[in-house]
Amino acid sequence: MNKFSTTDKSVDALENMPWEDRPSGSSAVIWRYSANPVIPRDLLPTSNSIFNSAVVPFAGAFAGVFRVDNQKRQMNLHRGFSPDGLSWKLDPSPIEFLSDDPEVGRYEYRYDPRVTWLEDRFYVTWCNGYHGPTIGIGYTYDSENFYFVENAYLPYNRNGVLFPRKINGQFMMLSRPSDRGHTPWGDMFISQSPDLVYWGKHRFVMQPKDGWQSTKIGAGPTPIETPEGWLLFYHGVLTSCNGFVYSFGAALLDLEQPWKVLYRTASYLLAPQTLYECVGDVPNVAFPCAALYHQPSGRIAIYYGGADTVTALAFCRMDEIIDFIKSNSEL
Amino acid sequence: MNKFSTTDKSVDALENMPWEDRPSGSSAVIWRYSANPVIPRDLLPTSNSIFNSAVVPFAGAFAGVFRVDNQKRQMNLHRGFSPDGLSWKLDPSPIEFLSDDPEVGRYEYRYDPRVTWLEDRFYVTWCNGYHGPTIGIGYTYDSENFYFVENAYLPYNRNGVLFPRKINGQFMMLSRPSDRGHTPWGDMFISQSPDLVYWGKHRFVMQPKDGWQSTKIGAGPTPIETPEGWLLFYHGVLTSCNGFVYSFGAALLDLEQPWKVLYRTASYLLAPQTLYECVGDVPNVAFPCAALYHQPSGRIAIYYGGADTVTALAFCRMDEIIDFIKSNSEL
Amino acid sequence: MNKFSTTDKSVDALENMPWEDRPSGSSAVIWRYSANPVIPRDLLPTSNSIFNSAVVPFAGAFAGVFRVDNQKRQMNLHRGFSPDGLSWKLDPSPIEFLSDDPEVGRYEYRYDPRVTWLEDRFYVTWCNGYHGPTIGIGYTYDSENFYFVENAYLPYNRNGVLFPRKINGQFMMLSRPSDRGHTPWGDMFISQSPDLVYWGKHRFVMQPKDGWQSTKIGAGPTPIETPEGWLLFYHGVLTSCNGFVYSFGAALLDLEQPWKVLYRTASYLLAPQTLYECVGDVPNVAFPCAALYHQPSGRIAIYYGGADTVTALAFCRMDEIIDFIKSNSEL
Amino acid sequence: MNKFSTTDKSVDALENMPWEDRPSGSSAVIWRYSANPVIPRDLLPTSNSIFNSAVVPFAGAFAGVFRVDNQKRQMNLHRGFSPDGLSWKLDPSPIEFLSDDPEVGRYEYRYDPRVTWLEDRFYVTWCNGYHGPTIGIGYTYDSENFYFVENAYLPYNRNGVLFPRKINGQFMMLSRPSDRGHTPWGDMFISQSPDLVYWGKHRFVMQPKDGWQSTKIGAGPTPIETPEGWLLFYHGVLTSCNGFVYSFGAALLDLEQPWKVLYRTASYLLAPQTLYECVGDVPNVAFPCAALYHQPSGRIAIYYGGADTVTALAFCRMDEIIDFIKSNSEL
Amino acid sequence: MNKFSTTDKSVDALENMPWEDRPSGSSAVIWRYSANPVIPRDLLPTSNSIFNSAVVPFAGAFAGVFRVDNQKRQMNLHRGFSPDGLSWKLDPSPIEFLSDDPEVGRYEYRYDPRVTWLEDRFYVTWCNGYHGPTIGIGYTYDSENFYFVENAYLPYNRNGVLFPRKINGQFMMLSRPSDRGHTPWGDMFISQSPDLVYWGKHRFVMQPKDGWQSTKIGAGPTPIETPEGWLLFYHGVLTSCNGFVYSFGAALLDLEQPWKVLYRTASYLLAPQTLYECVGDVPNVAFPCAALYHQPSGRIAIYYGGADTVTALAFCRMDEIIDFIKSNSEL
Amino acid sequence: MNKFSTTDKSVDALENMPWEDRPSGSSAVIWRYSANPVIPRDLLPTSNSIFNSAVVPFAGAFAGVFRVDNQKRQMNLHRGFSPDGLSWKLDPSPIEFLSDDPEVGRYEYRYDPRVTWLEDRFYVTWCNGYHGPTIGIGYTYDSENFYFVENAYLPYNRNGVLFPRKINGQFMMLSRPSDRGHTPWGDMFISQSPDLVYWGKHRFVMQPKDGWQSTKIGAGPTPIETPEGWLLFYHGVLTSCNGFVYSFGAALLDLEQPWKVLYRTASYLLAPQTLYECVGDVPNVAFPCAALYHQPSGRIAIYYGGADTVTALAFCRMDEIIDFIKSNSEL
Repeated sequence: MNKFSTTDKSVDALENMPWEDRPSGSSAVIWRYSANPVIPRDLLPTSNSIFNSAVVPFAGAFAGVFRVDNQKRQMNLHRGFSPDGLSWKLDPSPIEFLSDDPEVGRYEYRYDPRVTWLEDRFYVTWCNGYHGPTIGIGYTYDSENFYFVENAYLPYNRNGVLFPRKINGQFMMLSRPSDRGHTPWGDMFISQSPDLVYWGKHRFVMQPKDGWQSTKIGAGPTPIETPEGWLLFYHGVLTSCNGFVYSFGAALLDLEQPWKVLYRTASYLLAPQTLYECVGDVPNVAFPCAALYHQPSGRIAIYYGGADTVTALAFCRMDEIIDFIKSNSEL
Repeated sequence: MNKFSTTDKSVDALENMPWEDRPSGSSAVIWRYSANPVIPRDLLPTSNSIFNSAVVPFAGAFAGVFRVDNQKRQMNLHRGFSPDGLSWKLDPSPIEFLSDDPEVGRYEYRYDPRVTWLEDRFYVTWCNGYHGPTIGIGYTYDSENFYFVENAYLPYNRNGVLFPRKINGQFMMLSRPSDRGHTPWGDMFISQSPDLVYWGKHRFVMQPKDGWQSTKIGAGPTPIETPEGWLLFYHGVLTSCNGFVYSFGAALLDLEQPWKVLYRTASYLLAPQTLYECVGDVPNVAFPCAALYHQPSGRIAIYYGGADTVTALAFCRMDEIIDFIKSNSEL
Repeated sequence: MNKFSTTDKSVDALENMPWEDRPSGSSAVIWRYSANPVIPRDLLPTSNSIFNSAVVPFAGAFAGVFRVDNQKRQMNLHRGFSPDGLSWKLDPSPIEFLSDDPEVGRYEYRYDPRVTWLEDRFYVTWCNGYHGPTIGIGYTYDSENFYFVENAYLPYNRNGVLFPRKINGQFMMLSRPSDRGHTPWGDMFISQSPDLVYWGKHRFVMQPKDGWQSTKIGAGPTPIETPEGWLLFYHGVLTSCNGFVYSFGAALLDLEQPWKVLYRTASYLLAPQTLYECVGDVPNVAFPCAALYHQPSGRIAIYYGGADTVTALAFCRMDEIIDFIKSNSEL
Repeated sequence: MNKFSTTDKSVDALENMPWEDRPSGSSAVIWRYSANPVIPRDLLPTSNSIFNSAVVPFAGAFAGVFRVDNQKRQMNLHRGFSPDGLSWKLDPSPIEFLSDDPEVGRYEYRYDPRVTWLEDRFYVTWCNGYHGPTIGIGYTYDSENFYFVENAYLPYNRNGVLFPRKINGQFMMLSRPSDRGHTPWGDMFISQSPDLVYWGKHRFVMQPKDGWQSTKIGAGPTPIETPEGWLLFYHGVLTSCNGFVYSFGAALLDLEQPWKVLYRTASYLLAPQTLYECVGDVPNVAFPCAALYHQPSGRIAIYYGGADTVTALAFCRMDEIIDFIKSNSEL
Repeated sequence: MNKFSTTDKSVDALENMPWEDRPSGSSAVIWRYSANPVIPRDLLPTSNSIFNSAVVPFAGAFAGVFRVDNQKRQMNLHRGFSPDGLSWKLDPSPIEFLSDDPEVGRYEYRYDPRVTWLEDRFYVTWCNGYHGPTIGIGYTYDSENFYFVENAYLPYNRNGVLFPRKINGQFMMLSRPSDRGHTPWGDMFISQSPDLVYWGKHRFVMQPKDGWQSTKIGAGPTPIETPEGWLLFYHGVLTSCNGFVYSFGAALLDLEQPWKVLYRTASYLLAPQTLYECVGDVPNVAFPCAALYHQPSGRIAIYYGGADTVTALAFCRMDEIIDFIKSNSEL
Repeated sequence: MNKFSTTDKSVDALENMPWEDRPSGSSAVIWRYSANPVIPRDLLPTSNSIFNSAVVPFAGAFAGVFRVDNQKRQMNLHRGFSPDGLSWKLDPSPIEFLSDDPEVGRYEYRYDPRVTWLEDRFYVTWCNGYHGPTIGIGYTYDSENFYFVENAYLPYNRNGVLFPRKINGQFMMLSRPSDRGHTPWGDMFISQSPDLVYWGKHRFVMQPKDGWQSTKIGAGPTPIETPEGWLLFYHGVLTSCNGFVYSFGAALLDLEQPWKVLYRTASYLLAPQTLYECVGDVPNVAFPCAALYHQPSGRIAIYYGGADTVTALAFCRMDEIIDFIKSNSEL
């Protein structure tokens, strides 16, 4: 069971989030927050954009690790805090990850974080520049001090997402092997580790299909454990004659053998259709990095990046999402 | 003479369409409907977008074959009906084309339909997936039952547009041979057939020129017969550093030897400049698929896709269009 | 049954060809002529290369249509004659195809001919430049006067190969739709025609597979009718980091529904391995355009281009080829 | 010292320009004019877009050379005049440059002009089509008659910008060597000339760096002489998965050896973030071509193109810009 | 110390190899075997080519794992044995690697093996197809039974080369992260493992430089321990206008921190210059996969692939190689 | 008149060159030296290849500036001397060009030299690396001391060839503007200079045509003055599916307005057809850099690079070449 949603204080936090119901007249399984974007591009004086960010319940409120591109267009990670998940204060300085080894501790670039509560701490995974993009792993107990573990893989990789508990005694991480550029392909794999330092037993999970997910796919938020399997929101990319379009759908993965895909949405759940998703530094992007599940009420809140520029929020219900995935599934 | 505009009931239909005059102060030869888009992307609950669609006068009102991409981003054709050409109801199920041969009757994808009244029925041509994009031909007498004829050509082809009558005893179709992807080139050709099944005597019609039509060109709506030649609206594509820009112009083709281009607009008639043309699934697209001519009044209504997302409408007058083409022509 | 091998004089011609047996110690199903190349690049004073050429038994001897690139590197077709199939004299002037329509009769370029005896004459098909490569069709009764029929298809197409008899009352032609350049993909299709002018009922035949035929495939010589099906030699292309490699294998197609592939060699029959196949204007090419079958003896002689520079010859036996195809088949 | 800002009448002109102060609450070193765009795309009846244009103080008011793309999408240069720098009238006919040599005097295309007062006249430099893009040089004394000098360089080049005075007795021009297409790289060089006809002693100035200026860079407005060096606004391009993003920053070049870069902004000054910069013929472009400096007040007004569609205006102060460049510099 | 050269029987084997001295008149540090290629492309009846193969001293003679592409152009690994390292017999069947997990045990393709004696057995590493190329690890005690361990990394990777002993208690492997195709870039990394299953602590080793190694580099044979550091022969690739050219040089890596490069040849040691290196399935390839060191005599024999077609042999001396590397080093 | 051929000693040198007559039976206008290549790739102990080199008569014998790529695959220029033009000694050290300005005097790379006697000294032009390839100019009086003048143009340029006398008081140089890589296009231009430092009045000369010269063209040896115009040998490139093929032809340029092409060979004169032209570091290259004309006898000797690896020699006669150009000309 997902620790985020069972800590008492986390429950409190999610209960206090100003949830919005599905707009009347709509039959969509997922709907946008009416005051999107929740975080504008210029929340910090030197930020160019704030997006693809990971929010967690924390200490009765909300904390997050945010992708902040500054006005040099350097990509970095910043901490942020919010009482309600909507109104945010971000640390103007990037997170410093402590490391004993200067070879991997030095800074190239960091982007697209995910945060996972696992056993006793928050783990952060992100796309980390080390002679190419790979998956960096760090952690914090208190959101004050952050420690660097290691780069999980050789370059070139993106979208590394940890499972929130060990499975069969092993840490598990999803990722998408990539190339050096704007990779025009990409399958999802899972890797296993006894210690978060050494990784192996890599297994193929799933690959692109037709339509909105025909170019490449990548894991989104930390998977949520449900009786039906691991609920994984993931993004898919379609290549139009004018570039990539990032939408997102969801899958259910086997609880014990998570490389087995049980169900997978043939339709997207949300595609870029609003101005803040279609216009910005990268037009036509909706990219989810965090999904908060309030188990008592069945509510899910999804944070996603809009146009690689701003952070937006969408809502759905666990029962409806599970139904949708199962009834719209094509493997 | 174009049958669409001479059937009594069609005349009625076009007379009843709420035509708008040129906005005061404008000198444009073509002007947009003030309440564009006429069809929003989400007219159907499962539609991602509705665009590049073909409207015809039908039974005193309007009918059409619509490109509907669903939320899988699969491309398909749906029927629709409207009393006035502005307010539409679409069949939520795709058109089923009956075929005796399962090899070509099976479904891959369908997009960018054109509809032509020819002799005794409505013919539909579209880009049909058969081991690559080619031109599918079908027909209906009643907009209830649709029959598949054949794929006219080998792949790879797009923008197949039938002439509304036989010429010298032959069916005639324009098309643009293409490749497998987002083809960065493309000339317009014409092909001839005694029976709509076997095609030959392919002749070159025209190729890209400078500016708005420098990358590729493709036939748009069914040509309209005029004393000056076949009036053909066609789209042209320019490649900017950020992708393709689809605009449209027009040409006049020789009535008996329609591979001979008499006049051709050096300027575009309409280029993507509004939000619904510039922002959407494919930014910067204005793509016409139907032009309705009301001969008694000289009015023309052009349906075109906006940003590969919505359906829009523009108006012009036959006499002004002919004048514009002839006075702005460069061959 | 293939007319080439049953005309008395043709039998004579093939009987008189200096056939070579399989080299001792070899177990190969196909073996090269020991004095390859049979036609050097400079047989004509102005030829740059002579390759990808089509030979037929003719009047008790041999005739052929040859791809000759001149020293402008223009591609054209020339006639040639030989008493034994090895020693050739070529007409220094290109073949002139007579046509009533100057639009398609004018010359752009011609290459990669095939010749087929069909009913009452020799048909020539080739890759013909008409605003892009397509399949030109011509014929001759006497190898003196050649007549142009039409371009069978819209551009862009290559490797058009006629069947040597009508099937179900229809002419049949294989081809590979292509693009404008050095197409990096390509499937084989079949098209049907009542009259060699209008073509339709296009059906998919087969596509690339792994290994030597992983990039694209194309029909080679005129198919030979056998009790086991149409014997089709075809080339396949593999893309190494240093370019295309053209090898050839064979398939058996259903006699009445030749779009049905019964068997297809997973291994190549012959790949470029000699200096005259590996070194030349296009390194690493073995490209067959003619296969002569001497039914009484079971012998087959295959003419193929080497390195897009010279013409080479290989031998095999019908029974062994059929066995090989059937026992090495993967569909 | 920049002659534009010291002519009495020019001072008058700039004094009378309706300057806007930094918006309250903002700490940005540069801010947009509140009524942007100052020139809409359709200011002329036949204009498709008006952007990347060069404004100078002229005769107590303002004049400029404007890039106007017409509705053929041909690129040309037009004159324009304004009493206040905001309200413009453009000559509907392109500028005609007089030349004795028809070989270089004939018209292919012209775009992205810069205008520089140098000694006794206004020089215009622009990207000139002569078998590829190169830098054309022309001049006018009176904005009535324009004379063509020569193309400074061989193709392929863009963004040629003259210094407003000779340095060490030589004319100096910045430029960016390019290729034939949408060049995905580009360094800035300087060239020297005794007479504006023959150019040599080419020296490298600077190359792309990380972030907003990682793909290519190019000089913007005429450099402004300051005690701290030549103030050069320049654009930089970043390549996202959906295309180029054009922002601009600034540098200070050594007064006597202007190929030596003293300081250079690591952050951009202005990046495309408004609808008129993000939506248009080329999304995500802010491209400066003119900067007017009013020395008495320290005010600078920058004209820049938005989305390759409209002309916009931004304001800043000399002292703040100099401070920003020096304190944000990375070489 | 390298176990291969210190086993008594291995010493015997290498002593008995018919070594050739440097040709008189030559000053080259490395020289080719006079009867190259040692293994022709058609040593097996169904082989298309045999190259990029790994030879080790074994039981007083020589054994090896060979890349054999069959006539389907499938890539596989075969065992082979030789009394003298020159005359080889290859098993006509591919090696079967036993595995408990059918997911990774199933066969896609295998190529470019390296063999390393490590502790108590021979380890084989190769480029293994598992949803893309990655590094497979297997082992054998007896060259009879082979066992599959795991894929070390996520795809896409090539040129995985194990060190012949643990360093600081960790297994160490060099590799080159790649992409899905003919990767036009590539750095060398090192990864560490406690158990050959889980890998981590990835460190950058070196990247391409100018000239022969300007496109990509990859580890060649198993590194040889010397007092001067690990002797690593490695290939480098230059991209000419007609494709890749594969040459090889050498480096010395720190004994305890082998990601530290002590010396590296600026010149190549051997580049493709003979017909069997320049002509074949991939022209211009010399690709080393095994280096046998006979410590008593200081002799080294290097097996390398020629033109991706045949296996060739070259000789050099340890002292001269070390001298050459150190005196020609550029880091 | 070309000074090289009229100096007494030069005449002597050319008289003493062991000229070969056209092989009996051949009708070719140009024929290869029977002992090609004249310079092997390994003439120097550290040379990888020696090709694309410029030879001139010098002091009664022959001297030359040679492109020597060393075994790092660095490109450089070396001096060489020969008594007969066939047997060469090369200086093992690269030429050092003296320069006062370290910015342009420093070394990046140098290749493809041409040498021209002009007025009072030998000028050397070559492709010079200065932040990209451009045309370096140097000179020597005595082949001992070489001086650097300047880079004539901004990058990116190749194949800069000086005329051997001023025309209308101006130095003249042909060149081909290029891009940063293996440029897939290229026209020939001419530029003018009063002093070899500043260049301008750039004029288009000619562009690629069909066939062997369809991709790009570039000037070869120094033009030779003849009563019929400047005789210019030039290379042309065709792009096959396996890369570039470099052949050469010739043109006659107007004596006073050398940007006017009077005649130009539609056929090539020599194309890569021998092993030393087809196999090497870049297969299929014949690239001329020097043509020596012995006026008394009408003999011409052409030095050209083979396969970017060796230097070869071909012979022809002035009268026959002129005839051939004029009778095979297509403009």
